[in-house]
Amino acid sequence: MIDIFKGYKGKALSVLKQFNIRVWCDAHIKTTRGDFSGIILPRAENDDKNHIVLKLKTGYNVGINVKNITEIKELGYKEAHYKIPEKEFPFTEGKANIKLFGTGGTIASRLDYRTGAVIPAFSPGELYGAVPELADICNLETEKLFAVFSENMGPEQYKKLAIAIGNEIKKGVDGIVIGHGTDTLHHTAAAISYMVQNSPVPIVLVGSQRSSDRPSSDAALNLIHAATTAAESDIAEVVVCMFGPTSDEYGLLHQGTRVRKMHSSYRSTFRTIGDVPIARVTRDKITPIKEDYNRRRKDNKVDILPYFEEKVGMIYYYPNMQPDMIYSMIDNGYKGIVIAGTGLGHVNKPLYPAIRKCKEKGIPVYMTVQTLWGYVHMFVYDTGRDLMSYGVIPAGNMLPEVAYVKLGWALGQTSDIDKVKEIMMTPISNDITKREPYNGYLVYQGGIPEVEEFIRKVHK
Amino acid sequence: MIDIFKGYKGKALSVLKQFNIRVWCDAHIKTTRGDFSGIILPRAENDDKNHIVLKLKTGYNVGINVKNITEIKELGYKEAHYKIPEKEFPFTEGKANIKLFGTGGTIASRLDYRTGAVIPAFSPGELYGAVPELADICNLETEKLFAVFSENMGPEQYKKLAIAIGNEIKKGVDGIVIGHGTDTLHHTAAAISYMVQNSPVPIVLVGSQRSSDRPSSDAALNLIHAATTAAESDIAEVVVCMFGPTSDEYGLLHQGTRVRKMHSSYRSTFRTIGDVPIARVTRDKITPIKEDYNRRRKDNKVDILPYFEEKVGMIYYYPNMQPDMIYSMIDNGYKGIVIAGTGLGHVNKPLYPAIRKCKEKGIPVYMTVQTLWGYVHMFVYDTGRDLMSYGVIPAGNMLPEVAYVKLGWALGQTSDIDKVKEIMMTPISNDITKREPYNGYLVYQGGIPEVEEFIRKVHK
Repeated sequence: MIDIFKGYKGKALSVLKQFNIRVWCDAHIKTTRGDFSGIILPRAENDDKNHIVLKLKTGYNVGINVKNITEIKELGYKEAHYKIPEKEFPFTEGKANIKLFGTGGTIASRLDYRTGAVIPAFSPGELYGAVPELADICNLETEKLFAVFSENMGPEQYKKLAIAIGNEIKKGVDGIVIGHGTDTLHHTAAAISYMVQNSPVPIVLVGSQRSSDRPSSDAALNLIHAATTAAESDIAEVVVCMFGPTSDEYGLLHQGTRVRKMHSSYRSTFRTIGDVPIARVTRDKITPIKEDYNRRRKDNKVDILPYFEEKVGMIYYYPNMQPDMIYSMIDNGYKGIVIAGTGLGHVNKPLYPAIRKCKEKGIPVYMTVQTLWGYVHMFVYDTGRDLMSYGVIPAGNMLPEVAYVKLGWALGQTSDIDKVKEIMMTPISNDITKREPYNGYLVYQGGIPEVEEFIRKVHK
Repeated sequence: MIDIFKGYKGKALSVLKQFNIRVWCDAHIKTTRGDFSGIILPRAENDDKNHIVLKLKTGYNVGINVKNITEIKELGYKEAHYKIPEKEFPFTEGKANIKLFGTGGTIASRLDYRTGAVIPAFSPGELYGAVPELADICNLETEKLFAVFSENMGPEQYKKLAIAIGNEIKKGVDGIVIGHGTDTLHHTAAAISYMVQNSPVPIVLVGSQRSSDRPSSDAALNLIHAATTAAESDIAEVVVCMFGPTSDEYGLLHQGTRVRKMHSSYRSTFRTIGDVPIARVTRDKITPIKEDYNRRRKDNKVDILPYFEEKVGMIYYYPNMQPDMIYSMIDNGYKGIVIAGTGLGHVNKPLYPAIRKCKEKGIPVYMTVQTLWGYVHMFVYDTGRDLMSYGVIPAGNMLPEVAYVKLGWALGQTSDIDKVKEIMMTPISNDITKREPYNGYLVYQGGIPEVEEFIRKVHK
């Protein structure tokens, strides 16, 4: 007998029973926040008792809090086959042993892209059922560390993740894959680049922009690329592995400190900024683009530095910004501030007194550029030199969000601001580079037929 | 007889006299902030009495505050010919009449690219001496509205500029050019897009990334492109005109609400985000890339809407952000807030109570995405719908800085937050578009020979 309330618990289950609604039915839900129509999906998350998940006609899934539901009507019903064929993940002597950590986010919780169902495929057996190619690549072990939305990841999770990675490396794992929601994947990649240093093996962060119940999902292929990188590549760096072009031709490996989410919905959302990606990856091979990366080693040595001072903040300059923003950070006990300034690293004059006060209070202030590409250069104009005399430190070509993560990490190790400066200004994993290559910048290519054709192709 | 203190006044003049130092000498300056070597340049700015301007060996110019100078030594002297041959700008019957407004910034103050000198070339006669091609393009009239660094431009300047533009249009000018520092040129372009609507003529903002005393200066060519656009194009929009590629092959015209500075030092720093540029421009012709722009008209009608509420602010989300940032904005009387959120428009849970309080206080909060490309989409996850129930309004694909400018402009017109919402969500000059074209996004093109060659060429 089919369980028509597959996976639902608590209040959500009660509401479904109250309106006599089955999973997989086509339903119209009235709520205090508006109406929704779509297919009632089985539940993915483990502990949630408050939401009914609906697949909208747009292909997106929404979770509706049952407390807002005033009525559900069943419009039709079509039974679906949604079970992932769970098989034991085969162990093959000689294949690399890979550890997959789950942190929450799409890739860890939804992997059945064949049936239209949302399934928490995460155990090795489930992953094997959903993406059987994984068994050709590696021996897989999985561990769910957290189940939080990407935007709720923070220092606590960074530290736990770094320690868990360290333990696996010391046990002799051949590579690490971390499943992560995409919103703040690049912040976590930066944090792990600082907290896990001199790794002998690849550490690959991976996510997906489209959940695996959508036909265009990138979840399975990203996971295959990530597992291939972790198992087979000699790139012993913290990297982000996601689609290169919007089409599924290849993935790119981006250095953890030089990557940023640049599109809210494209699958090719992650871009290396101010550099070229480390490598291109397909199902069959990994093709390095750069040569200067740390090579895989045979030892189990790694430095785990799980520190973070939470009282750091970032200010993003805009015209007419007033100093109250900075004064309130001083009053609220912030211990470090990163500014994303304009141009070569400027802010307006009304902020100067507040910045001087930071210096008086011993609060280090680092300057980055909101252009994302290029360097802070504060010697060009007198205004920049004024800011430096007030203690503002130019942070080279560090990305603003990377400088924020690094400052939290540095202040977590010491409150001596000279030592903090030494840590900040010592390049780690190319967070500061001597130059940015010409082909690391973006050029509008319209009108060059080969380029137009290439762009059209990769956007198919 | 040569005035060896050319252009210096006040304290700066006294210090030069004290150390017996001539303009154009090769000097070593000791200051309390470090030492500098280079050529003492004549002064460009009008009212400044406190700085000596030095051309460093890197080609950059620095202004050194004389109060910090402890010693100057003359190392050598070579007289330079730096006078711009000032000729009367010829008036040609039948040529377009163009008004050039100066706001400060490199292009308006330094235009003599032949002699290595920094000269405030701004009057029509000086511009004609420096860039004689301008006389082939148009009849030119100039007016210096302000002389502020780009990062100090703000609402007061936006309003004055809009009113000045309106007066010129009503007098029958054929096109407007605005010289502007590059740091916040895109913010001003957005402000003018809102404050000057339904213009019958092109309004072209232009700057330069390298001052005109450097051999690689883009000042003269940008000005030629901008004057050509203002005089000859049928594009009656507010546009930014700057180098397309890093080489000088062509300029691009970017819509004022869809443009952003994306590189701190490249000449090709301005990029259209989430769309393609309106047109390509060379010395000879203007080639439209898009078709949907406002055409030039023969009337003198224009809507000038010079409004701005200064108590608006922007918050740029980062992991572990704490609500104190938003509470302090509430306490400090902010009347509107723009958030640049992650992914599809998210922030972490600790901010929710602060955002709810904004709703209680009647402070509108608009959500944009810090990915820059793509749309806010807050219906996908429950967290997004929670935020919307607390009053957060998704701002489509408006750029964060554009949403900030628009919110200040909307709140300057009305404090009724429903009317503000109507203004915010009504697309103006493509600040919100229905879709972003596939070739408006950036793709890493490495490995495609034609593309690599193209990129190499444009970076020559």
